[in-house]
Amino acid sequence: MPPTSDPDAPTARSGRRGGGRRGGGRAARQAARTARAIDSVPYLTRSIDPVEVLSTEGLERIEHHADLLLAEVGIEVHDDPEAVAIFAEGGAEVDGTRVRFPDGMCRKLVTEHAPSSFTQHARNPERSVVIGDPHMVLAPAYGPPFVRDEAGGRRYATIEDFRNFVKLAYLAPGLHHSGGTVCEPVDLPVNKRHMDMIAAHMTLSDKPFMGSVTAPERARDTVDMAAIVFGRERMERDTVLLSLCNANSPMSWDRAMLGSARVYAGSNQATIITPFIVAGAMSPVTVAATATQTLAEALAGMAFTQLVRPGAPVVFGSFAPSMSMQTGAPTFGTPEPQMVLFLIAALARRLGVPFRSGGNFTSSKTIDYQAAYESAISFLATMQAGVNFVLHAAGWLEGGLVMSYEKFLLDADQCSMAPAYIGGVDTSDNGMALDAMRSHTPGEHWLGHEHTLANFESAFWVSQFADHASFEQWEVDGALRSDERAATRVAGLLASHEAPALDDAVAAELDEWITRRKGEFPDSDV
Amino acid sequence: MPPTSDPDAPTARSGRRGGGRRGGGRAARQAARTARAIDSVPYLTRSIDPVEVLSTEGLERIEHHADLLLAEVGIEVHDDPEAVAIFAEGGAEVDGTRVRFPDGMCRKLVTEHAPSSFTQHARNPERSVVIGDPHMVLAPAYGPPFVRDEAGGRRYATIEDFRNFVKLAYLAPGLHHSGGTVCEPVDLPVNKRHMDMIAAHMTLSDKPFMGSVTAPERARDTVDMAAIVFGRERMERDTVLLSLCNANSPMSWDRAMLGSARVYAGSNQATIITPFIVAGAMSPVTVAATATQTLAEALAGMAFTQLVRPGAPVVFGSFAPSMSMQTGAPTFGTPEPQMVLFLIAALARRLGVPFRSGGNFTSSKTIDYQAAYESAISFLATMQAGVNFVLHAAGWLEGGLVMSYEKFLLDADQCSMAPAYIGGVDTSDNGMALDAMRSHTPGEHWLGHEHTLANFESAFWVSQFADHASFEQWEVDGALRSDERAATRVAGLLASHEAPALDDAVAAELDEWITRRKGEFPDSDV
Repeated sequence: MPPTSDPDAPTARSGRRGGGRRGGGRAARQAARTARAIDSVPYLTRSIDPVEVLSTEGLERIEHHADLLLAEVGIEVHDDPEAVAIFAEGGAEVDGTRVRFPDGMCRKLVTEHAPSSFTQHARNPERSVVIGDPHMVLAPAYGPPFVRDEAGGRRYATIEDFRNFVKLAYLAPGLHHSGGTVCEPVDLPVNKRHMDMIAAHMTLSDKPFMGSVTAPERARDTVDMAAIVFGRERMERDTVLLSLCNANSPMSWDRAMLGSARVYAGSNQATIITPFIVAGAMSPVTVAATATQTLAEALAGMAFTQLVRPGAPVVFGSFAPSMSMQTGAPTFGTPEPQMVLFLIAALARRLGVPFRSGGNFTSSKTIDYQAAYESAISFLATMQAGVNFVLHAAGWLEGGLVMSYEKFLLDADQCSMAPAYIGGVDTSDNGMALDAMRSHTPGEHWLGHEHTLANFESAFWVSQFADHASFEQWEVDGALRSDERAATRVAGLLASHEAPALDDAVAAELDEWITRRKGEFPDSDV
Repeated sequence: MPPTSDPDAPTARSGRRGGGRRGGGRAARQAARTARAIDSVPYLTRSIDPVEVLSTEGLERIEHHADLLLAEVGIEVHDDPEAVAIFAEGGAEVDGTRVRFPDGMCRKLVTEHAPSSFTQHARNPERSVVIGDPHMVLAPAYGPPFVRDEAGGRRYATIEDFRNFVKLAYLAPGLHHSGGTVCEPVDLPVNKRHMDMIAAHMTLSDKPFMGSVTAPERARDTVDMAAIVFGRERMERDTVLLSLCNANSPMSWDRAMLGSARVYAGSNQATIITPFIVAGAMSPVTVAATATQTLAEALAGMAFTQLVRPGAPVVFGSFAPSMSMQTGAPTFGTPEPQMVLFLIAALARRLGVPFRSGGNFTSSKTIDYQAAYESAISFLATMQAGVNFVLHAAGWLEGGLVMSYEKFLLDADQCSMAPAYIGGVDTSDNGMALDAMRSHTPGEHWLGHEHTLANFESAFWVSQFADHASFEQWEVDGALRSDERAATRVAGLLASHEAPALDDAVAAELDEWITRRKGEFPDSDV
């Protein structure tokens, strides 16, 4: 297994399990203040073990089947002779557009060359993230053409909405990443909007962000813009872009994605190779088969990046909702996709590559019980499976068609729970509290106890939107649902945004570059 | 470890992992139809491993500390000299109302005598449940003095509400148990309402149910009423009652609970010994200490049942929300109580006794995003921890003050997901689908494939209340939230209820007994 590409990455807070050294009194209060700073760590570190739902033997069978499929069935490569040639040169058997991989070729390329973990550098070094075990990075939803808020209802997204969500993600302590297409700015031409999106991530936030993948030349634009901010030479050494390349499941890849992957991997930038599978439509309806196909498709895509540039950072991605057999729509928050998620997380660990999946998914049209239950079921599995990069962690509504302002705030709030959930159990002397319990009188409450006073500030995760008041107080406060409470916070949060400092010369160069580039070809909506 | 008390209990569906023998075509369709009957199994069987959040060494330290607390601090026993005498006779050191347990006395009593699993017989043998590993039984919420529905708002519960929830639990395929005080019928005198509650469980449902614990004489009444339905002689052999005995945390027990436990254990009926701890108020604010105290209190209570009658079925219970340090109210669905739940489930497994905890908890006042997210976080841990008996699985709102008609339906719907979540991954040939995938052409969809057609009916869990339609269709359907959709179903469900047959002579004897007993003492509201 290759070493982590950046062993000197800054350390996130260390896990709480076992190693704590908190004492009582003043030391404990200091520890409490430190623990409150959890919210501002650049990324999370897991202490609990990932949940496993299948034996090693079962996982080995899935791996064996994936290798069989890659050798016997292979994958279709659409409209991309250059990619086919790269595969052929790497040892694949090519028959027209069909590419077959003998003898575990893909697996070997990935295990021998792909890093187990890497740092995605942000322009603010304090916000750089490590993507790989035992870490977790949370990013907003990606791709919705619509937005929705209490005030304006459901409508097509614009670049103003896009900028708003970049601002909200920047302001959210529970999110570590600015994401990519946080919504689709449909008021801008398709072939140029990527420049405005990338510029928004670069100027309104200093968290790491994702590049364009809708065409290889847009990936190239992204790399060129990043070079202005980070320096082209540095990008040969440091990964500053992470971009999402989806397979055309089942068992197919196209030029947009492989072409973009070629640009990014060739520039030492990271890709997330994601089979996008609605189980039942793009794969068999069973959990094990969906995991098998996901593994096969991802292996082909990840191997491609290693053929382009051995050692290029690459993330194993999975997006695998089930299909409603009644309506044909993807369904979220049901048990089967969580089992797929747990399985593929285990397969990624065995491959030794970082894993991307999960989020706060729902197919509900509004922020109701369904929306939250489906989101929570999805997000719990995400936290427990050992996911390293989480797209869609906030805002996702209506099967991904809508980015919701209020759900964004509610989800980002729930995301802030993750450190406490994956941080494990504190078994330091302070956590065990034996002395306190030994000296405590049965029947007496603990509210005023020294141990309670020393720890209460950091003891429990606190939601910013949950209501724990009495019924009477809640009525006095307007009897609001949590989404209505969130709605009252959107405008104030947006108004509070201050863009993080950016060197004036860099900002000017970026502007000039975009103006020039936009002038090089006519607007188009394809 | 003592044997399971009823090895001949009917078998629930066996786990799916590995052992499947489904073939393609007709056989698979038959298997699909069988799998659909999952909904009506009397209780669930777990195939996935329980989630563990602490090492064996950590669990051993907690156990050691609990034994130390029981030996050094001991527990207070209020107003119950008889219980103190029973403890003393068993070897405890008594100092007034303080009872201390030397040398792991409680642990020994429990591990040597308490059964690892037992059957609670229902009056319909097809609805009897096995309580213990690897099984899970889901029951409605317990204790709310208020009810709430869309039509009538929030109001005090009545016996009519009580009967309604017994009917709804009877009709819910996702619930296996009729529960106990599904709501508090405050329109009836405190000292007699238990008879009406027990009668409702006995006549409107044939699922197993819980007995009264508010005073030892009411426990006695419950046993006497059960004797009419089940036969007193049979009750010496078969457990037909399961009743909830809560500690007065911290480290105290009172006469109501120990007295009731004495009645039930003495009659070979099951008790759930539950420390009821709001962490931060009734225990230290840390996860490990709350688990330690829960274990100590439960050990004392469970040991008590084994002193009363060695071998009496007893369940280790835990109810341990955190306290809001802002309002003092209990909070639910936060990470820390889930860690306590995972810990105590592991401790119960190590003790070799069944475990009760979890549910669909929230402190929200209404059925909103908060309510669902908190409930889902709680219920996920419940499914994953290896809980054997789940109280509060449906209807709980507002920290347990309110039983909600609509949330009952939504929660019971989510409960029906549990078989798919805990059932594990199907790695049979049909589940792996290798032949289907080998013969499949890349790029073609799977909708019409033979394997899909053979499996789609049983492939995915389907919610009865989630909306997966298009936005446009959802608008045409009234743009309802899921709680509003649930509201439209309450009246129809209640109207559809038909009481399961009960022998006329038994029903008459029950009526006569209640009338006579109610006449023996005046109504009272204490």
